Amino acid sequence: MLSLAELARVSAAELEGDGTQLISAVATLKAATADQISFFTNKRYRADLASTSAAAVILAPDQRDAYSGNRIVSNNPYLAFARISAALNPEQLADLGVHSAAVVDPAAELGAGVSVAATATIGAGAKIGRGSTIGPGVSIAAGVEIGANCRISSRAVLLERTRLGDRCQIGAGAVLGSTGFGFANDAGRWEAVPQLGGVLLGDDVDVGSNTTVDRGALEDTVLERGVKLDNQIQIGHGVVIGEDTAIAACVGIAGSTYIGKGCTVAGGVGFVGHLEIVDNVHITGMSMVMRSISEPGVYSGYPSTKNSDWRKNTARFQKLDQLARRVITLERQLNQNNQAESSVDDK
Amino acid sequence: MLSLAELARVSAAELEGDGTQLISAVATLKAATADQISFFTNKRYRADLASTSAAAVILAPDQRDAYSGNRIVSNNPYLAFARISAALNPEQLADLGVHSAAVVDPAAELGAGVSVAATATIGAGAKIGRGSTIGPGVSIAAGVEIGANCRISSRAVLLERTRLGDRCQIGAGAVLGSTGFGFANDAGRWEAVPQLGGVLLGDDVDVGSNTTVDRGALEDTVLERGVKLDNQIQIGHGVVIGEDTAIAACVGIAGSTYIGKGCTVAGGVGFVGHLEIVDNVHITGMSMVMRSISEPGVYSGYPSTKNSDWRKNTARFQKLDQLARRVITLERQLNQNNQAESSVDDK
Amino acid sequence: MLSLAELARVSAAELEGDGTQLISAVATLKAATADQISFFTNKRYRADLASTSAAAVILAPDQRDAYSGNRIVSNNPYLAFARISAALNPEQLADLGVHSAAVVDPAAELGAGVSVAATATIGAGAKIGRGSTIGPGVSIAAGVEIGANCRISSRAVLLERTRLGDRCQIGAGAVLGSTGFGFANDAGRWEAVPQLGGVLLGDDVDVGSNTTVDRGALEDTVLERGVKLDNQIQIGHGVVIGEDTAIAACVGIAGSTYIGKGCTVAGGVGFVGHLEIVDNVHITGMSMVMRSISEPGVYSGYPSTKNSDWRKNTARFQKLDQLARRVITLERQLNQNNQAESSVDDK
Repeated sequence: MLSLAELARVSAAELEGDGTQLISAVATLKAATADQISFFTNKRYRADLASTSAAAVILAPDQRDAYSGNRIVSNNPYLAFARISAALNPEQLADLGVHSAAVVDPAAELGAGVSVAATATIGAGAKIGRGSTIGPGVSIAAGVEIGANCRISSRAVLLERTRLGDRCQIGAGAVLGSTGFGFANDAGRWEAVPQLGGVLLGDDVDVGSNTTVDRGALEDTVLERGVKLDNQIQIGHGVVIGEDTAIAACVGIAGSTYIGKGCTVAGGVGFVGHLEIVDNVHITGMSMVMRSISEPGVYSGYPSTKNSDWRKNTARFQKLDQLARRVITLERQLNQNNQAESSVDDK
Repeated sequence: MLSLAELARVSAAELEGDGTQLISAVATLKAATADQISFFTNKRYRADLASTSAAAVILAPDQRDAYSGNRIVSNNPYLAFARISAALNPEQLADLGVHSAAVVDPAAELGAGVSVAATATIGAGAKIGRGSTIGPGVSIAAGVEIGANCRISSRAVLLERTRLGDRCQIGAGAVLGSTGFGFANDAGRWEAVPQLGGVLLGDDVDVGSNTTVDRGALEDTVLERGVKLDNQIQIGHGVVIGEDTAIAACVGIAGSTYIGKGCTVAGGVGFVGHLEIVDNVHITGMSMVMRSISEPGVYSGYPSTKNSDWRKNTARFQKLDQLARRVITLERQLNQNNQAESSVDDK
Repeated sequence: MLSLAELARVSAAELEGDGTQLISAVATLKAATADQISFFTNKRYRADLASTSAAAVILAPDQRDAYSGNRIVSNNPYLAFARISAALNPEQLADLGVHSAAVVDPAAELGAGVSVAATATIGAGAKIGRGSTIGPGVSIAAGVEIGANCRISSRAVLLERTRLGDRCQIGAGAVLGSTGFGFANDAGRWEAVPQLGGVLLGDDVDVGSNTTVDRGALEDTVLERGVKLDNQIQIGHGVVIGEDTAIAACVGIAGSTYIGKGCTVAGGVGFVGHLEIVDNVHITGMSMVMRSISEPGVYSGYPSTKNSDWRKNTARFQKLDQLARRVITLERQLNQNNQAESSVDDK
């Protein structure tokens, strides 16, 4: 239990109300009980705000009048919520050491406080930074380098020439460093092109469950500092993703495409290869990006265009059958007019 | 070998022909030999029905005259086929106990007849119901609960706060309970929002190979009784899927979306987050669902609309270039008419 | 280090320049240093060709004049590059034998020179051909057959009734032989149809990371000789893919679809079930193939049509809002004309 005053402090927010109130947990407005804190960031939950039993609510300054109880007021209430939740739910430190059923090559280097779970395998020359945890069944190939305080979840696979910065989180079943899909064609048969690059992750990179990141053909595939990848994403060989770019699930990015910093990519989007996407581009769900993008903004569609154009064109598509019928009517009318005209001329 | 009389009994179907005929196996109409049974449920195989060597054929009452040999007649011939095939191919019971190379925490609870294969890991406090089988390399985290007679296939990962009902089937490489993709933005940098919910599966839920189901942010992600998920599906945090809904491969469902009971979702469909989809909705392949759906029916498209509208509009799209040319022709004609008119006026 | 003369020999290309020049590695035109070889196959890198420091460049005969240094001239320069790179980067032979932490059933048969890494499991009756390597944590079920010189990467899962030819490469986390998604409906509830077929791979088949291939319902799922599958592909039960067909990442193919030889399928494409696609068909990214294709060629779209039609229609879609406005203008003009006409008539 932490006091509201303490929670205001950790979230750098303003407290309005009883700072001594103790809080046990975060909860939704609907589910919160009398010693829990909730948050109001989405107007569709206004009714829940009116009837909540929460001990306190986190909200923005312009919403403070909507709630009369204890308030944590923040210009970024969702961030305040994240920090308060983190304070109430501290990570369980798990300095378990190396399990007897882990298989660690004698030539691997493990930092202080590294945990290695049962059935994990770590190859020769691999380096694991201090405080990192390696989950059950994780496979770390020879020579892989992992920074400090990383979390590698169950069954993730880090293949040769993969290097991670500090505080990276790799999801269960993710695969980093697999062979890129590169073949030359010899009279109809495919011949593999050696894939010689690696995979390089900056600090604070997250990779979701069952996401795959191929190693580069000649140069590294790179996820820069702060990149966040959701589950089941495919990153082709030689792709570079800029700092703080976040990508939702089921996205596929073909080889050698460069994506800038601070971008967001919604679920199911596809990028063809060899594109350049500038910083601060936002792609909406299931779009197919076929050309480089040189201006920041929101893009959508198959193939993708500016979102404002796509929305207009899509609204028209939803009535395309009707539009076609109107063209047919026009054709008939004009035809009738012309016949009438010509019959007038004939007179 | 089972007799036709026995197979008619297990499928609750009507036998027309020699009940003493022994059957060894199921097969396609084309491949079936003289002691095998086949089925006719798709008219495109009528020629195969005429020439089959099968000992008997399962078919619907209105098709019985199309075949003169031994018949198993059922109002649901595909279901009858499923049951006959199951009778002819009983599951191999594998009460193998706990393999010496499995790693089971002493504080885990295993029911009677539980099998745990080599290199599987089971954490402290996990509970596995009687008759369940845990495949090679499966990773079951501390505190996970699994009901009776579940089948957890090779390398599946069940993370903290995952609970399964009875008779669930989890495919190889599937991941249940991974951290949801939730971040707050702090001046351009992403900060993780703690994911505190779990994953809850009812009875008779199937999850396909390499499918991922994230745990909820605040409340559970739920797959209700009888939900069937194919391979490589992504279920976001806080999603709820209603009873008996079946979802084909490569579908992605973003966080907090609710899908009703008895729905079917074809392959490659995407749902954005926070939607409500009522019962008995059917979505066709690769549609993107961007809005809640309040009426049962068939929906399609990018973004999705009623299937009947989508089909009409798509048919028009296939001739859109021609339509545009017709509009150009109309513009020219009208322009010519107006010029002719004005030249007449000028006279 | 190999001499240029030797590299010309292994790539069956023509050497123009100093055959005694020693080469250490392949590199991009931009990165290559004075003892490295590069290649020029994409005109967008012409500026890099002019300024490269490479010891030699691989290029096509019609480009030979664009570079004055040592040249390896080939009609298929990308293939020559692949072979030269392979010669400079020979596969590390890893005859490591069976690791003490591997779990191999006594009734499994391993050929000469087979390597089995730690925590891999191999079931009874499985056969592994000579020279094949089994990575860490790989799960090979009872009775699985693997040919000679195959590479099975970390955590891949080969389930019952899977058979591989020679020289197959299976990516990390891939799953072969999982249960197909087949259910009969019994008054709203789904009942599993036994999946009795297997998965059959010819020689030289590659399967990418986290790709899934279901076993057939009644007959085998087949990947013929030379098929190349990228990462995160889903192959449904009973699918057959013809020789030398290459499929990029994130493609889904529903059950019983047949794809011919020599096809290419770009990323994110979906195929519905029970289709027949002839040889030499090429599908562009994120298309949905809903009908069988009986003519070779390039196809695109949602649903797919001939690429040439799709491109024309898509170009029109990008201006659909404008087209709709032009129709409105036409309607107004015609209406005005008709009113003018009728007012003339009224006179």
